[in-house]
Amino acid sequence: MRAIVIREPGGPDVLELRNVPLPEPPHGFVRVRVAYAGVNRADLLQRLGMYPAPPGVPADIPGLEYVGVVEAVGEGVRERKVGERVFGIVAGGAYAEALVVHARETARVPEGLSDRDAGALPEALLTAYDAIVVQGGLAPGQTLLVHAAGSGVGTAAVQLGRALGCRVLGTSRTADKLARCRELGLDHGIVPEGGCFADAVLAASGGRGADVVLDLVGGPYLAETLRACAVGARVLLVGLTGGRGAEVDLGLVLTKRLRLQGTTLRARPLEDKIRAAQVLETNLGSWIAAGRVKPVIDRVFDLADAGAAHAYVAEDRSFGKVMLRVGAAGEAS
Amino acid sequence: MRAIVIREPGGPDVLELRNVPLPEPPHGFVRVRVAYAGVNRADLLQRLGMYPAPPGVPADIPGLEYVGVVEAVGEGVRERKVGERVFGIVAGGAYAEALVVHARETARVPEGLSDRDAGALPEALLTAYDAIVVQGGLAPGQTLLVHAAGSGVGTAAVQLGRALGCRVLGTSRTADKLARCRELGLDHGIVPEGGCFADAVLAASGGRGADVVLDLVGGPYLAETLRACAVGARVLLVGLTGGRGAEVDLGLVLTKRLRLQGTTLRARPLEDKIRAAQVLETNLGSWIAAGRVKPVIDRVFDLADAGAAHAYVAEDRSFGKVMLRVGAAGEAS
Repeated sequence: MRAIVIREPGGPDVLELRNVPLPEPPHGFVRVRVAYAGVNRADLLQRLGMYPAPPGVPADIPGLEYVGVVEAVGEGVRERKVGERVFGIVAGGAYAEALVVHARETARVPEGLSDRDAGALPEALLTAYDAIVVQGGLAPGQTLLVHAAGSGVGTAAVQLGRALGCRVLGTSRTADKLARCRELGLDHGIVPEGGCFADAVLAASGGRGADVVLDLVGGPYLAETLRACAVGARVLLVGLTGGRGAEVDLGLVLTKRLRLQGTTLRARPLEDKIRAAQVLETNLGSWIAAGRVKPVIDRVFDLADAGAAHAYVAEDRSFGKVMLRVGAAGEAS
Repeated sequence: MRAIVIREPGGPDVLELRNVPLPEPPHGFVRVRVAYAGVNRADLLQRLGMYPAPPGVPADIPGLEYVGVVEAVGEGVRERKVGERVFGIVAGGAYAEALVVHARETARVPEGLSDRDAGALPEALLTAYDAIVVQGGLAPGQTLLVHAAGSGVGTAAVQLGRALGCRVLGTSRTADKLARCRELGLDHGIVPEGGCFADAVLAASGGRGADVVLDLVGGPYLAETLRACAVGARVLLVGLTGGRGAEVDLGLVLTKRLRLQGTTLRARPLEDKIRAAQVLETNLGSWIAAGRVKPVIDRVFDLADAGAAHAYVAEDRSFGKVMLRVGAAGEAS
């Protein structure tokens, strides 16, 4: 099969299209013929050698999400059959024509959803849902603040916030992205000026502040984020595009009883990933089918152009998802 | 009635014993004749003008915990009767011969427990239990790290950790306090050298790190605390004796999926305080009665000597609780 292999740590040009052996699904696993794979910032870090794949995952083939068709099942698999359309997240290996994944980690694709649309959803939607709902406890009527609101995870979070009946505030360095987020349910967009946004968040929430913050930026934003929090707020850290060093006023953490929590899906154990697949198939599957959350696709590259896709993501101009067309060459993009 | 009043923000000498009007219990409240009140670090901050009492609480009478006898009940009170022995936490006002508190915020004193012993428990035990169990989710067999293990809250946390069947590690700047903590259930004590303790925690937990950290120190400890954490650990911040500014490596927070959470009881709403009273009466009451958690009393001062008690707490030499004898002058201390 064809796959994108990281030749060595480095720039986008180290991504090489190669022929590699077709993997056989072991006991409990299925092999999926991949139609589309998503491109995530974590893939760029992995390519640079800064985010190695966990054990049991192809070390040199990136790709954290996929959609495709089950084409082979290992022994003991009762959950899936050959021919079923599935999608989901994996810890690596999705930049390839075929992918081996535990049967219980796959989710059925809702009927009527195209491969292209389905492939844009798993990582963004699960990351946002797990962070703001499962871990952050976002409840109807609360105020959600989404940093990098125009990113893949950000656009998913904005839609989830709206679907939950929350007031949704978002930041982006680009006013144009915020304007597009309004169509997804953003109530109020903020372009941080001189790194400041807390006063704007407080003003937009009647002085109360945000109950839940989804933070993909980290470092330089954190001090303002804590200022922008309501009493009892939860700050979910899912990315560090701004850097990992931060100065924290623990006095604010204590007096406002704040919760700062880091969370990633990739390194989580099997049981967590199975639960994520169930959430994707049931809770989110029903919202996808009902149109309450929609894929937001910026651009689709061919698998062979993975390097160009990485370069494009690094430019930070995209709105929503950047994807790779893997085995669906005939489909319109 | 006699009460200690903060004359103006300042040192221990601003605490004055005065005659003040006896408060009448409004609808739903009871008046408690106070036998003992605890001295807490927060009282010292309040005296300095740095921790004002929340609305609805005597602004100038400190005191966050008490034990005593119900001597009057307001209209509508069905939960308590005159003559019942109660103890609990309040947001202020306990340095006084009588105290008005919501009936549902009081807890019955377990039979056989002396006033002196009961008075040493509410704040320390509830703070520790709420932080490490209710909010931190400490579970049997996990590893608990307690900073300032020899403090009132620290000695309570060490005992709770043991009672839950956890491995209990603790830090203190004084080796002697750690030695005394061993009698309470501490498995391994660490005197930080040059501010370092993470390697010692990792070594004492087989490389795994702490699952839950109770942190009363804050500022300079936080970087090491995060290093000392296991994957998925919860850090509960309940005090800031070390200072409020901290540098945080968000990379650790993200990759280890850590949770940093500030928590205080004093500013919490009525419903939380009622729940705390129920925990004190039922869960903790049963452990107190069974001897699984015991009061640790360093020294008892007379109410009139509250200033001396504050000066003593500030010296940081105490092990366990410092208390005020209010209306129990006849009892042996």
